[in-house]
Amino acid sequence: MTESMIPDEIIIKPVGIIKNTIKTPERLPGDKNSSGDNLKERIKKREKRDREINETVSEIVVDKKYDGILDGIEDFSHILILYWPHMLPKERRSLIKVHPMGRKDIAEKGIFSTCSPARPNPVLITAVPLLSRDGNVLKVQGLEAVNGSPVIDIKPYSTHYYSPDNVKIPDWMNDLA
Amino acid sequence: MTESMIPDEIIIKPVGIIKNTIKTPERLPGDKNSSGDNLKERIKKREKRDREINETVSEIVVDKKYDGILDGIEDFSHILILYWPHMLPKERRSLIKVHPMGRKDIAEKGIFSTCSPARPNPVLITAVPLLSRDGNVLKVQGLEAVNGSPVIDIKPYSTHYYSPDNVKIPDWMNDLA
Repeated sequence: MTESMIPDEIIIKPVGIIKNTIKTPERLPGDKNSSGDNLKERIKKREKRDREINETVSEIVVDKKYDGILDGIEDFSHILILYWPHMLPKERRSLIKVHPMGRKDIAEKGIFSTCSPARPNPVLITAVPLLSRDGNVLKVQGLEAVNGSPVIDIKPYSTHYYSPDNVKIPDWMNDLA
Repeated sequence: MTESMIPDEIIIKPVGIIKNTIKTPERLPGDKNSSGDNLKERIKKREKRDREINETVSEIVVDKKYDGILDGIEDFSHILILYWPHMLPKERRSLIKVHPMGRKDIAEKGIFSTCSPARPNPVLITAVPLLSRDGNVLKVQGLEAVNGSPVIDIKPYSTHYYSPDNVKIPDWMNDLA
C-alpha cells in the first residue's frame, strides 16, 4: 500500500432522494445579513424554523435497484442520514472560515470547527428518529434537508459508535443550540 | 427546483490523509471465514483487535491549502472523521446483505442496517476523542481506519446534533459491541 494509491477524486452515486416540504435552505452560508434583521429577530426566526423542522416528516426513497438493502433497519429507533446539499453553490465550498450560523457577534471559526454546510465536501449528517419503513421508503422526523437532496448513505444509529462519553463543546456552540 | 437537477454523480476531493500503524483492514467484508477459526476464536481475535485500535493514535493530516480551516477545533473534546476505505475492492460495494461482522450465527441484514464498510458509498464515520492539534495535523485516538485512508470531512462532535435521546438498537448489534 503506497500513498500514490490515494484517489484524487472519489465518485459517489446517490442511492436515493429525500422528499419533504422544505423547499429552500434557511440561508446560504456566507450570505451577508442583507435582510437588516437585528440579532434578536434573527434568533427568533431561527428558533421558529427549528421548531418547524423538528415537526417535519421526510421520506427517504431508496433506489429500487437496492431491494433488500434496508432489511432489518426497522429494528433501530434512530438512523444516520448522509446527504448532499444539492442547492449549495459550488463556490461556497471554498470558504475557509465563517461566523457560525452567520452570527457576526461570534468570532470566525474554521469551517471544520462548525456545522456549516459550506465545506469542501459537504456530506451532511443528521441523526433522526426512524418513524416507519414501507419497502424502499423510510419516514424520519426532524431532518433539515431540502426536498430533492440526494442520499449518499444510511447507517443504523448505535450509541456504541456515535455517542462518546464526556463530550465537551465550546460555549459558542452551546449558545447556538 | 426539479428532480432533474439531482446529480448522477458527486465528486469528492479528499482534504487530507490518515496516518497510523494500522496496515490492513481486519477482514474484507464478504470474505468467507476461510481461516477455519471457530466462533469463540474469532470473537477473541476481534476483541484483541478492538483493544489495539482503542489504543492507537492516528494523525489526521489536512492539506495545507486549507490553512485555517481547523481554527477553533481544539475547543472540542471529540470530532467526527469522515473517511474513505481506500483498500475496499470496488466489487464489495455492490453487496446487498451481509452477516454482521461475518458472523454466520447472526441472520443476514441489509447493508444499510449494518456498520459494514461494504456499502454502495462507503463514507465511514467515527466519533473520536481529539487529543491535540498542531497546525494542520490533528491527533485522535481509537480511529479504525487503515493508514493512508483519504479524509473526506471533519466535523465538531456536538451532543445537540449527534446524541439523540432514547436510542434503541436490536439485540444482535448490542451483542456485537
